[in-house]
Amino acid sequence: MPTPEPNRYGEIVADLVDRIRQRHPLIHHMTNWVVMNDTANLTLALGALPVMSHAKEEVAEMVGAAGALVLNPGTLYPDLVEAMLIAGKRANQRGVPVVYDPVGVGATQYRTATSERFLAELRLDVIRGNSGEVGTLAGAGGLVRGVESVQGVSDPAAVARALARRQSTVVAITGKRDIISDGKRVLGVDNGHEMLTTITGTGCMATTAVAVFCAVEEDRLLATAAALAAYGLAAEKAARGSAGPGSFRSALLDCVYHLKASELADGARIVDLE
Amino acid sequence: MPTPEPNRYGEIVADLVDRIRQRHPLIHHMTNWVVMNDTANLTLALGALPVMSHAKEEVAEMVGAAGALVLNPGTLYPDLVEAMLIAGKRANQRGVPVVYDPVGVGATQYRTATSERFLAELRLDVIRGNSGEVGTLAGAGGLVRGVESVQGVSDPAAVARALARRQSTVVAITGKRDIISDGKRVLGVDNGHEMLTTITGTGCMATTAVAVFCAVEEDRLLATAAALAAYGLAAEKAARGSAGPGSFRSALLDCVYHLKASELADGARIVDLE
Amino acid sequence: MPTPEPNRYGEIVADLVDRIRQRHPLIHHMTNWVVMNDTANLTLALGALPVMSHAKEEVAEMVGAAGALVLNPGTLYPDLVEAMLIAGKRANQRGVPVVYDPVGVGATQYRTATSERFLAELRLDVIRGNSGEVGTLAGAGGLVRGVESVQGVSDPAAVARALARRQSTVVAITGKRDIISDGKRVLGVDNGHEMLTTITGTGCMATTAVAVFCAVEEDRLLATAAALAAYGLAAEKAARGSAGPGSFRSALLDCVYHLKASELADGARIVDLE
Repeated sequence: MPTPEPNRYGEIVADLVDRIRQRHPLIHHMTNWVVMNDTANLTLALGALPVMSHAKEEVAEMVGAAGALVLNPGTLYPDLVEAMLIAGKRANQRGVPVVYDPVGVGATQYRTATSERFLAELRLDVIRGNSGEVGTLAGAGGLVRGVESVQGVSDPAAVARALARRQSTVVAITGKRDIISDGKRVLGVDNGHEMLTTITGTGCMATTAVAVFCAVEEDRLLATAAALAAYGLAAEKAARGSAGPGSFRSALLDCVYHLKASELADGARIVDLE
Repeated sequence: MPTPEPNRYGEIVADLVDRIRQRHPLIHHMTNWVVMNDTANLTLALGALPVMSHAKEEVAEMVGAAGALVLNPGTLYPDLVEAMLIAGKRANQRGVPVVYDPVGVGATQYRTATSERFLAELRLDVIRGNSGEVGTLAGAGGLVRGVESVQGVSDPAAVARALARRQSTVVAITGKRDIISDGKRVLGVDNGHEMLTTITGTGCMATTAVAVFCAVEEDRLLATAAALAAYGLAAEKAARGSAGPGSFRSALLDCVYHLKASELADGARIVDLE
Repeated sequence: MPTPEPNRYGEIVADLVDRIRQRHPLIHHMTNWVVMNDTANLTLALGALPVMSHAKEEVAEMVGAAGALVLNPGTLYPDLVEAMLIAGKRANQRGVPVVYDPVGVGATQYRTATSERFLAELRLDVIRGNSGEVGTLAGAGGLVRGVESVQGVSDPAAVARALARRQSTVVAITGKRDIISDGKRVLGVDNGHEMLTTITGTGCMATTAVAVFCAVEEDRLLATAAALAAYGLAAEKAARGSAGPGSFRSALLDCVYHLKASELADGARIVDLE
């Protein structure tokens, strides 16, 4: 019987979770009204500290104290978009990683025009979306209805890599297999569970997890894959004991909170694709 | 022993739930900040897709892709009211059903004036409120403190029918027995549980359920009664296993998600009143 | 063996909870978007009625019907601050108690400037914050990052008393031991559980509890201590049966809802410090 290859990535994931729990980075969220409570609680469950702040009057100052900035314009309006740009620019100046979630891009012209401003005016460290959203950003034919991907891209690895290269960023397309690329390498993450599709905000929570990991690891490709693996592994555990979406939502926080180094090392399923 | 009368309505409810799960209609919510997460999760648990969008810059476009529009001005302010009117008018043009929840109408002059604009400027397919709210809208003496009905109407069937006739709409007054009228017929729904009064947003969730059912059934009277029966039946089941309001809130989503055709057919308690 | 001193405060706490459940006071919340759902549900679980209302167009009228007003500018912006001042002034005129939660004060200049306006323009009945926040308000060297206290005050009893005296208010610094002062007396509350630090909004919920108790008891020092003891006792019970932060969040509402007079009388741990 051949010795199984040691899971190199699993140990990295475990190490990053440990770093988060020691450093408690502050994660500045500018996010949508629907999921604020869930993303704040996920941040805490991972060992980091959330702050939600949206006013133009304070975001530049707030982001200066943060380890990462989440830009999630799921319930966007003009003042919020302006504030996001102010915070994003300051984050860029200060070297604070910016993680962008293009919620519902393509569903309306306003969302698409806003995403174009973000891509043009900010240096985004990571973009995380579903297949339809990233396909829309990449001009690769994704289709979005509301905030759901109704038509994904046919070759997510190629789309993620092309968009990442064009924007000098890391792109993550989450789905049954998450695809992450920095424009050169492509990683896949096979953790996760279909129960994640039964409650709102699980994509937004994935984005929050990415921001938390980016606050402690400069290799954004690695940080993103690790975040999605840890979050997905917790979802797998949560699904096992859940009677439905309501109890899954509670269990997800419980399982994130109790993630152990050993189970991360063994259970993270990150693979090199290209 | 007489053969029990078959529950004609029960089978209709089961059929509509099946339709929702097959078609996954998009439900555009313009709703209050307090319950957004719960109403989004209820939409998903029923098998539909939620989108929350409020900006004047996009609501007309967003509602064009929707199967129903929820207008719930529970945390209203002028820009939101204007955006609701924009979305409502477009929905009217496109034949998208509009379901209106007059949260707290009567509690302040601003809420009452806003409801008057909605009644005057929009064609509302369904109005769902508590007894005090609908009594206020109908000029039938309801009394509202905050968002609670402190004095309901004495003859809800007559009030619902009169308001429905005046506004050419369907009116639902929810309470221990829900009363629904289209101006001619009056139905009663006896599903539900008093635990629904122990958590916030259960009225808003009822409104969301109505919108989801209206997205798949043009007979708004029937769709509304079916929605309230299915939601109420799930609440009955959820209450049985709950230790209090927190666990009831989780169990409610679990039970909606798992509603079975057979239990809907047997358990829906819709009666013809007039 | 000496007879234990009867817990005088415990019986007061039990009595106040009973009063809340009989009177169902309306609690007008002007609070942050993150915790609205949780604070509304806590209000209901205690036996009171929540209303969330923020528009300048209605807050003066709404607060007139309320038993207490919560001002929690956790996600502040200029229009909300103006509306809070309008509501606060009307509450002052009408004798409605105002409970202020200085979320994140000190983290940005905008938060600090806003708190200065509140202190200057309103008569605040109770101020509840963490050690860093109250230290900042008192000019006693607290340090806040985001909304977390990263450096508390060294002598919380002295700081609470000095700020209470200066502002003619009651000040509560919550933490492992809660410290409450009206400028003369100082009480300590030893209820609570460290699981409260694992979910967002537990400070905001403590503020809500204080407002609910102030709606039925004019002695604000006593009302505040009683609120923190009851809330903390429920947290202790909730923690015992919880698998992590998600299930703790649900159980907290369950346990508040089921608080019994006897366990409040026995379990409330309020002590006279000065």
